[in-house]
Amino acid sequence: MPVLRNIGCLATCRAEGPQGELHPVRDAAVAWRGDRIEWVGAERDLPQAFRGEDGLDAGGALVVPGLVDSHTHLAFGGWRAGEFEQRIAGAGYLEIARRGGGIAATVASTRAASDEELLARCRAHLAGMRSLGVTTVECKSGYGLDLDTEIRLLRIYRRLAEEGPTRIVATLLGAHVVGPEFRDRRAEYVELVIGEMIPRAAVEGLARFCDVFVEESAFTVEEARRILRAGQAAGLGAKLHADQLTAGGGAELAGEVGAVSADHLERISEAGIAALAAAGTVAGSLPLASLYLNQSPLPARRLLEAGVAVAVATDFNPGSAPSWHLPLALTLACTLQRMTPAEALKGATIVAARSVGLEAEVGSVEPGKRADLAVIDAPDPNHWLYHFRPNACRRTIAAGRVVHEAVDA
Amino acid sequence: MPVLRNIGCLATCRAEGPQGELHPVRDAAVAWRGDRIEWVGAERDLPQAFRGEDGLDAGGALVVPGLVDSHTHLAFGGWRAGEFEQRIAGAGYLEIARRGGGIAATVASTRAASDEELLARCRAHLAGMRSLGVTTVECKSGYGLDLDTEIRLLRIYRRLAEEGPTRIVATLLGAHVVGPEFRDRRAEYVELVIGEMIPRAAVEGLARFCDVFVEESAFTVEEARRILRAGQAAGLGAKLHADQLTAGGGAELAGEVGAVSADHLERISEAGIAALAAAGTVAGSLPLASLYLNQSPLPARRLLEAGVAVAVATDFNPGSAPSWHLPLALTLACTLQRMTPAEALKGATIVAARSVGLEAEVGSVEPGKRADLAVIDAPDPNHWLYHFRPNACRRTIAAGRVVHEAVDA
Repeated sequence: MPVLRNIGCLATCRAEGPQGELHPVRDAAVAWRGDRIEWVGAERDLPQAFRGEDGLDAGGALVVPGLVDSHTHLAFGGWRAGEFEQRIAGAGYLEIARRGGGIAATVASTRAASDEELLARCRAHLAGMRSLGVTTVECKSGYGLDLDTEIRLLRIYRRLAEEGPTRIVATLLGAHVVGPEFRDRRAEYVELVIGEMIPRAAVEGLARFCDVFVEESAFTVEEARRILRAGQAAGLGAKLHADQLTAGGGAELAGEVGAVSADHLERISEAGIAALAAAGTVAGSLPLASLYLNQSPLPARRLLEAGVAVAVATDFNPGSAPSWHLPLALTLACTLQRMTPAEALKGATIVAARSVGLEAEVGSVEPGKRADLAVIDAPDPNHWLYHFRPNACRRTIAAGRVVHEAVDA
Repeated sequence: MPVLRNIGCLATCRAEGPQGELHPVRDAAVAWRGDRIEWVGAERDLPQAFRGEDGLDAGGALVVPGLVDSHTHLAFGGWRAGEFEQRIAGAGYLEIARRGGGIAATVASTRAASDEELLARCRAHLAGMRSLGVTTVECKSGYGLDLDTEIRLLRIYRRLAEEGPTRIVATLLGAHVVGPEFRDRRAEYVELVIGEMIPRAAVEGLARFCDVFVEESAFTVEEARRILRAGQAAGLGAKLHADQLTAGGGAELAGEVGAVSADHLERISEAGIAALAAAGTVAGSLPLASLYLNQSPLPARRLLEAGVAVAVATDFNPGSAPSWHLPLALTLACTLQRMTPAEALKGATIVAARSVGLEAEVGSVEPGKRADLAVIDAPDPNHWLYHFRPNACRRTIAAGRVVHEAVDA
């Protein structure tokens, strides 16, 4: 029964209270059995039963819940570094898409990649993420855009979930954009998503959520409503990419269908904010995408003031957010979105867990939750997100096992 | 005589041509003797004399000159994580300074710190920077603000320079702000800088440059002119912090005195741009400071179009740029300042070297230069700065010796 002792500051990140309330415990300890936390508190109160157990020493550092990256497009072939330069030279996201770059380029590379190649790439990304303290990752399909490849991507996520130790939440994003073979037959593509992708994903138990990119260049609100309702009827929770490049009513739709999250929201309207607040939908902020696209970020302060919980995720993908560095996303949430470090941290733990339907399992340090912990070389969350370093995470524990130890320089 | 072979892309970063021209060599090799590069070219052309020598294998990766961080405030006591949260809550830089936070807080911590404590902190920062490929660092005093502490900081930099392997360039920034004891006697403080700090730094050979912060809250153009002229008379080159928070004529002064660099420039005027271009002064961009202060960055494109070379540096300091992650600054130069990856890379190599007076020694991979090299896990500079990772540097060579090797996960 291992115990992590000598925790200078334990940010438990329990759900209650405002997003800036981390419910910290000073001079704390955490004890677990198997993969479940059994006890959390001040070390001086550690029950006799846990004394003398396997001790891990946190060295007086900050300990946070294993981080939850609630929005990634993990599995894809190829990269698109050339577009990075094109965007700097002034080409817009939509313009690059119209030129045949963008998502279409990644779809071609992804279809051409073998399962083993995609698996190897995903494993490397997940290992990098674990080294930063990330122990739960939401993974979207969406670079297949045909039935076989979308299902293949979801099966890759199932295999990664079985392998562990990162906890994987799979989301079907067949409705990322209209598949290239269907460019002039978009209604048929919508039917393919509804009539074939969703049923297959549901029957095989391959996805927990169904997501739609609501955007001029992707799907209309009406199409998204049909797809999300079909997903819900098949048992898949609803998620949306909404209001990223244009305010298109995506947030309003998220509220209407009771989506668990609506992500991006750089252009969200006041009506959209009200809809999310009324529905209890989490707003998923993706500050790396805002940075890479040099866009104004979502209005995090207005969302928080309206009572909307704001998750912070990487959006890791080969176009607009080619980095899985979640702590960088948190620092950017502070600097660009004016979230406090505490709000940002809760946005990548308990709020992120809620936005992937796992708030009972992960995202906070409480008895009964999975023993996912990250030991951070900082006295508190403020210092961690302020003094940005390549990697401030000294040790990661997932499901009760040490899965990363920093090597001293 | 060591040879680095199997370099997929060698960005030599020679000075000639536009800032975006890296003069790359494909399938390259570099050979050196002691700390000096002897040969650079395509590996197939490697002279017989170098074949069979100690071989280091770059694994087909990108190799760049050891990076030059041309603007840091390396030695300081304490941190100011609390201000990070205050700024998010809306407090301005000048407001925090007026409250007694800001530079004044760091001055108190720095004066209170022992030499050994400051040295240990600097060594740790320099080791972290080397792990990212940074082999030359400009280091400013400026958190002493009295004669003894300013000289003490410069002596710490001399000691670090002697220890190696990072090459250190020391700059006297006694004129960072008016020292706290002189708040109502600013003319006396200016005389202290001119009459005591500059002569001591010059006589002891402790600094190569003299820098002044030209800003409402710091020094006027007239004060800065006198200080910089006095520095030049004593053999110290001129550098300026200019036009960061207000357009105060700092860039114009930089041109007038023939400063080697003028840094920040977020608010530079058209006349300022023309002055830098006419004088051949390097513009030092500090995108981490722009990010942390949530400011518009300097107009890099207008500067480059006007023929001004733009360096990219971290500005590492405990207030407005608490990170020494130079590759992050480069990625931000691309996303926020619209510099191409190639322009950003030259900005942290040969242009940065010029801005610290070392263009004959470091900043490019050419025969006769110091053998400072960084092996980067990327096919080219575009991919490196696009796919931001905690640390993409696999190996760092300084003065011909391997000083960092990445540990595989």
